[in-house]
Amino acid sequence: MRRQIDACLADRGGAVSARLRAAELGRAYLGLNGKGRARFFALLAREYDIDPDEVDKASAALRAAEGEAERRTARRRLRRSLVPPRVHLLTQFNSLDRGVKFLVDMRADLLRAAREQPELRDLDGDLQELLRGWFDVGFLEMAQITFNSPASLLEKLIDYEAVHEIRSWKDLKNRLDSDRRCFSFMHPNMPGEPLIFVEVALVNGMTDNVHALLDEAAPEVDPHAADTAIFYSISNCQAGLAGVGFGDFLIKRVVDRLSQRFPNLKSFATLSPIPGFRRWLDGALDGEEPLLAEAEDRLIRATARKESGHQGLKAILDDPGWADDGDLVEAVREPLIRLGARYLAREKDPRGRPLDPVARFHLNNGARVERINWMGDRSESGLRQSAGMMVNYLYKLDEIEKNHEAFRGEGKVVASPQISRLCKGL
Amino acid sequence: MRRQIDACLADRGGAVSARLRAAELGRAYLGLNGKGRARFFALLAREYDIDPDEVDKASAALRAAEGEAERRTARRRLRRSLVPPRVHLLTQFNSLDRGVKFLVDMRADLLRAAREQPELRDLDGDLQELLRGWFDVGFLEMAQITFNSPASLLEKLIDYEAVHEIRSWKDLKNRLDSDRRCFSFMHPNMPGEPLIFVEVALVNGMTDNVHALLDEAAPEVDPHAADTAIFYSISNCQAGLAGVGFGDFLIKRVVDRLSQRFPNLKSFATLSPIPGFRRWLDGALDGEEPLLAEAEDRLIRATARKESGHQGLKAILDDPGWADDGDLVEAVREPLIRLGARYLAREKDPRGRPLDPVARFHLNNGARVERINWMGDRSESGLRQSAGMMVNYLYKLDEIEKNHEAFRGEGKVVASPQISRLCKGL
Amino acid sequence: MRRQIDACLADRGGAVSARLRAAELGRAYLGLNGKGRARFFALLAREYDIDPDEVDKASAALRAAEGEAERRTARRRLRRSLVPPRVHLLTQFNSLDRGVKFLVDMRADLLRAAREQPELRDLDGDLQELLRGWFDVGFLEMAQITFNSPASLLEKLIDYEAVHEIRSWKDLKNRLDSDRRCFSFMHPNMPGEPLIFVEVALVNGMTDNVHALLDEAAPEVDPHAADTAIFYSISNCQAGLAGVGFGDFLIKRVVDRLSQRFPNLKSFATLSPIPGFRRWLDGALDGEEPLLAEAEDRLIRATARKESGHQGLKAILDDPGWADDGDLVEAVREPLIRLGARYLAREKDPRGRPLDPVARFHLNNGARVERINWMGDRSESGLRQSAGMMVNYLYKLDEIEKNHEAFRGEGKVVASPQISRLCKGL
Amino acid sequence: MRRQIDACLADRGGAVSARLRAAELGRAYLGLNGKGRARFFALLAREYDIDPDEVDKASAALRAAEGEAERRTARRRLRRSLVPPRVHLLTQFNSLDRGVKFLVDMRADLLRAAREQPELRDLDGDLQELLRGWFDVGFLEMAQITFNSPASLLEKLIDYEAVHEIRSWKDLKNRLDSDRRCFSFMHPNMPGEPLIFVEVALVNGMTDNVHALLDEAAPEVDPHAADTAIFYSISNCQAGLAGVGFGDFLIKRVVDRLSQRFPNLKSFATLSPIPGFRRWLDGALDGEEPLLAEAEDRLIRATARKESGHQGLKAILDDPGWADDGDLVEAVREPLIRLGARYLAREKDPRGRPLDPVARFHLNNGARVERINWMGDRSESGLRQSAGMMVNYLYKLDEIEKNHEAFRGEGKVVASPQISRLCKGL
Repeated sequence: MRRQIDACLADRGGAVSARLRAAELGRAYLGLNGKGRARFFALLAREYDIDPDEVDKASAALRAAEGEAERRTARRRLRRSLVPPRVHLLTQFNSLDRGVKFLVDMRADLLRAAREQPELRDLDGDLQELLRGWFDVGFLEMAQITFNSPASLLEKLIDYEAVHEIRSWKDLKNRLDSDRRCFSFMHPNMPGEPLIFVEVALVNGMTDNVHALLDEAAPEVDPHAADTAIFYSISNCQAGLAGVGFGDFLIKRVVDRLSQRFPNLKSFATLSPIPGFRRWLDGALDGEEPLLAEAEDRLIRATARKESGHQGLKAILDDPGWADDGDLVEAVREPLIRLGARYLAREKDPRGRPLDPVARFHLNNGARVERINWMGDRSESGLRQSAGMMVNYLYKLDEIEKNHEAFRGEGKVVASPQISRLCKGL
Repeated sequence: MRRQIDACLADRGGAVSARLRAAELGRAYLGLNGKGRARFFALLAREYDIDPDEVDKASAALRAAEGEAERRTARRRLRRSLVPPRVHLLTQFNSLDRGVKFLVDMRADLLRAAREQPELRDLDGDLQELLRGWFDVGFLEMAQITFNSPASLLEKLIDYEAVHEIRSWKDLKNRLDSDRRCFSFMHPNMPGEPLIFVEVALVNGMTDNVHALLDEAAPEVDPHAADTAIFYSISNCQAGLAGVGFGDFLIKRVVDRLSQRFPNLKSFATLSPIPGFRRWLDGALDGEEPLLAEAEDRLIRATARKESGHQGLKAILDDPGWADDGDLVEAVREPLIRLGARYLAREKDPRGRPLDPVARFHLNNGARVERINWMGDRSESGLRQSAGMMVNYLYKLDEIEKNHEAFRGEGKVVASPQISRLCKGL
Repeated sequence: MRRQIDACLADRGGAVSARLRAAELGRAYLGLNGKGRARFFALLAREYDIDPDEVDKASAALRAAEGEAERRTARRRLRRSLVPPRVHLLTQFNSLDRGVKFLVDMRADLLRAAREQPELRDLDGDLQELLRGWFDVGFLEMAQITFNSPASLLEKLIDYEAVHEIRSWKDLKNRLDSDRRCFSFMHPNMPGEPLIFVEVALVNGMTDNVHALLDEAAPEVDPHAADTAIFYSISNCQAGLAGVGFGDFLIKRVVDRLSQRFPNLKSFATLSPIPGFRRWLDGALDGEEPLLAEAEDRLIRATARKESGHQGLKAILDDPGWADDGDLVEAVREPLIRLGARYLAREKDPRGRPLDPVARFHLNNGARVERINWMGDRSESGLRQSAGMMVNYLYKLDEIEKNHEAFRGEGKVVASPQISRLCKGL
Repeated sequence: MRRQIDACLADRGGAVSARLRAAELGRAYLGLNGKGRARFFALLAREYDIDPDEVDKASAALRAAEGEAERRTARRRLRRSLVPPRVHLLTQFNSLDRGVKFLVDMRADLLRAAREQPELRDLDGDLQELLRGWFDVGFLEMAQITFNSPASLLEKLIDYEAVHEIRSWKDLKNRLDSDRRCFSFMHPNMPGEPLIFVEVALVNGMTDNVHALLDEAAPEVDPHAADTAIFYSISNCQAGLAGVGFGDFLIKRVVDRLSQRFPNLKSFATLSPIPGFRRWLDGALDGEEPLLAEAEDRLIRATARKESGHQGLKAILDDPGWADDGDLVEAVREPLIRLGARYLAREKDPRGRPLDPVARFHLNNGARVERINWMGDRSESGLRQSAGMMVNYLYKLDEIEKNHEAFRGEGKVVASPQISRLCKGL
């Protein structure tokens, strides 16, 4: 394998032959199992890294350089010395039949392998940089996906959907109805492979629960009469493109497209999960700060007919049955909404960013936390992750830039008056 | 403009907004005249270059680093410090409507400007590197161009043809006849814009003059009966892609395609101009080495009825009328063929490469110098550049790699026995 | 409605306006329920039929005509008088948005209505003739259907499949695997709507049971190594095109296509149901001719442990459980195969044609009855219709014409030696 | 040949085989010269016509029929007897590779042959009827033609343009500029072959001369600001579709399309030639009615300095030089405009229709005669046909139906007040 790699790197027999050889090597890679691939990565990481001596020499040459011209030349040499030779090989794999997809999938393998072998991280950095250039958002085409799209593509949506599982082709068809839209980014050299897709419902009023959207029997709305576009699912499809983000671009291009096509639309909002709420809540309930007012606590315990200490709420939520007990649902409702608002809008990680990953994404995009929806997702995972709550993030077109800057600059979480009120005093 | 650039580089308002701003800046650029563009380049070159202090600091940090992990981090920092911030702006232009074409054309402007302002060269290096990544040959599609292709595309062939001018749509149609093939490389994000194209004739026997190929009245050959494919014209279309070569790939992919489609084909050869022959010859005739045998010289002078010193041949060739004087044509024939062979196969530039640029290209691709064709191009430019001679380069499929390595390694020019014989003793 | 129709027929306001009016009428038709549509048909049948007086007059004029020229004119008049005016209206519906599909669906309605109202038959004849012209096989495109085809098209296959129900998208995907082919006829003015499709398996040896083909877990065959193409399902999709046949053309074009693409293929055969076998058998068992040899009858009864008269076999087959009783299966096997061969190859309807409709179709196409497959279809419907038997019809390319002529001329059923032997003495 | 035809008509070997045989026959036809084709037509006309005896018998059977059912059957038989068997053969040709185009071209041949052999007219009637069914306007697609269309298609525009010759590719490109539109009807089974096309200019105000439109140097108009669409050329492309008209449909669909796309458009008008004016004028000047007032006549003669009788005007117009003599142009201007108006709006042929064929077409479409344009076409043919005059026909959207009915019913020519005034007293 080293001989093959060396021949590729030396462009032996000319660039065309070297590419053919790289393609062969790529096909050999595909024949390897996980272990074999890890070995291949280790080889690239170890043997085809930059040459530290050459870096030192180039660095010394730069220090010794005199005059601007000489310094420029020295800097170019130094820069070249910092690019590992393996990058040339990775690029050559692009000449495989479906070369771009090959490299994306190779990076997925590499990410897995790198979790256990930190020495692969620089190699991953090289590959990520290569893919970042190739997947520049300017190259991507936004495609509308309908039930007239190839079945093989639709099947991929079913596989990749990461937010609300697509249970059947009938479910999928419902999500592609005349009052729905589904858009994806496609790369011209990776035909039939969505990179990321978003599902949108055209509705009247801001939807407050996901079951209404997923109900296959619900009547269709006239999309030209709808006043609100709800982004209810956004899924990345290519594990190998982790860290190469384009969700922000997709949402905004979809907003543009829909605004033009449906001038009636007044609001663009998400209906989003709150994936980290319960994890935070459970920890916080164990902490010193009393999260519930005494009266609340008392009422909840009374309703739940349980008498064990401060665990009350936590224990209740651990048993999904609570959501079927109308009194209990009523008792926990207000405190949970308040805690949800606090979690989203006030709780930060050590780097000062919101704890919730979905919140981070939309806030960084310039959206604001708009409304907490009680019982917005009564599915098993909805109850487990967020006590059944969902949240709307609102994209107000003329505030997006300002919100983004406030968020990025001062870490400010922009929220609706309602949410702000819920957080007052925190 | 600086404020705009700064906002783009800082991704102010988020990446999406920054792209929109870059696109605006790009449109402003398009409104500038040559001077304005040169000023814009100068600004980028001067103000958005790498920061030498940061390079020094990063370099020092690397020297100070201890342990592998620390060194890796330091190297990454150093590498980052060597990438000028303007590269981010150039990338953002990709979000313009026809962004890739925009950048290719911008580079054409830049190359022009850099001829007079050497301080733009590093900027050009940045842009070239960016384009080299985007135009990786793995992304290119080979398209067959026929008379059913869009007229707007065919019009571009007429504009871009660089070897044998296309004089009219009728001439063009002749070059797309059933016994011709025309292939180009296209980039998926630059629709309708050929990058490079090659014209091929399917014939019997190795064609020895271009007039037969360009004769619109010549009868068509059955392409399935043809034994030889003649590559008679290859033209680059995008000035902004200078230095990003894919001619080698195009030729070899065309050879592959034709071999599969027409199993009868036995030979693949070019019919090429010898653009630098007369320039070299004129210089050499002025030199000390006698290029002609005495008898040859005498015969030529006698035939030309002229008596002035060693200028004889040079003066004759300076007057294009010589090609109509049968006796004279006969008299100079043998010596010129010999000198042509010598020029192509023996004469080198200071870096040890063949003098002729077309020869350099095909030899580096692994072809060999096959045959000199007397009166192969009697056009005005043919007579002026190469005394009417043309040359066939032969691509022998099983010798290409070997030839390339010999050429690249030892600088060896592989030639047919006939050509070698002509060069004997040199 | 009459006023609208009259305006259309008179091309009032010009042909363009008349078409617009017809389109409006068409949309009104779509708003009608079954009863309304039947009334519309009755109106067309009654009021827009040919004018018998005009026919009489034209007929008389022809008799009175003198000289060839006059006679020609008279014949043209007579011919015109025999075309009902409603045909012009039907044609105008073609200008509806999806006009061709509209008319095809209208005919499906009409066929239903005509079952109860015989006076609609001439109207149906008019519409059929119109569609027959529009669906001339020369206009149809043969499309290969794969899992990359639009999901909306694939969903139609699921709906239209008439032979072996497609149970799920997974079943469908199996039928589009790399060793399968599915082809359909499409009409250029009815995009996304298959007219008829055929499912083919590329296998080794002539498949003798359908379960092997429908088994989603069965390994795929290398299609280039397969020696036999099995046509295992052919379904018409458009009820409104009844009587406009193109199955013959589809099969033969698929045979052509596959022969070219897979030169390894030696045999083209069907694996077909025998839908009328049990119906015939039940009747025949009630008849006077003893269908079973005495020994056979005895063995069957003994195995079945039943003792009631000649009903033995019939009663056995009426209870699908028989197929799970190995001894019984063995006992009835030989007699049923023999009777199956007789049913297919010897039994005729009053017009002298084979009783079995599928047999009629393939025999008329020039195929021959090749082999009866015991337990070829153990599904509930397979047992009910044909006692679990299936049949292969073989298309021998160089005998198709001869077979067809023999069948059409003398009503001869061509069969394999094996089948002929089974029928000996009949 | 008869044997081949008979085999086709008998569907010998099955419909598929018969089609193959017909295709073979079609290819043989293509190998015939004009004489051979004429013989082929004569054979079809003579030997494959309807059978007069069968017509007589069917006619008698109808007279003898009793009861409605019997009569219906008899009528169907009679109708069948009136369809010549050759129609089946013609239909079968549709299975040739480009079968539709084959039949269209065959009809062009037939029309030529029928000019000299009247006995071919019924055969032509059969073929026309077949093509009329296949080219129903509901099947046609309106395509916009731009400079991005295939060159082979654009070349056909150059060939087919019948009104204002396209002189070069540059001229063509001018006609496809951003302020122009070109639309054609295409048949899905005749790809790459326009049936009819129309050229439109988007302008401000109703254009009064064609030179402004054909001027390649004229600046482009912003099409979104234009208030008028001028149809300045409409050409049929397929001689074999004579009598199968769709010009009316094309114009109105283009009007629809442009209205939607360019809401600024207020008027839709043609700029049309007056091809028959001079022919009529010359005859009329020879007639008894004095066309010119005495004063006019005198002035013209004086200006022309000629003194010979009533020929004055005629003789002047016969010499194209008159158009360069400013005084003369002024002298004839008013009388010619008046006579032009009269020719278009008052002069009728024996069947009561306007003399001018272009006028007939647009008036029947529901347009009105709007304005005569003096010196609208100074080209050689413009001067020869219409003394340099052109005419605008105006399509007023809300009057088209009324105009058409008035024209078709009472033969009324609708004209603008200006034109009516010019015709006063006639």
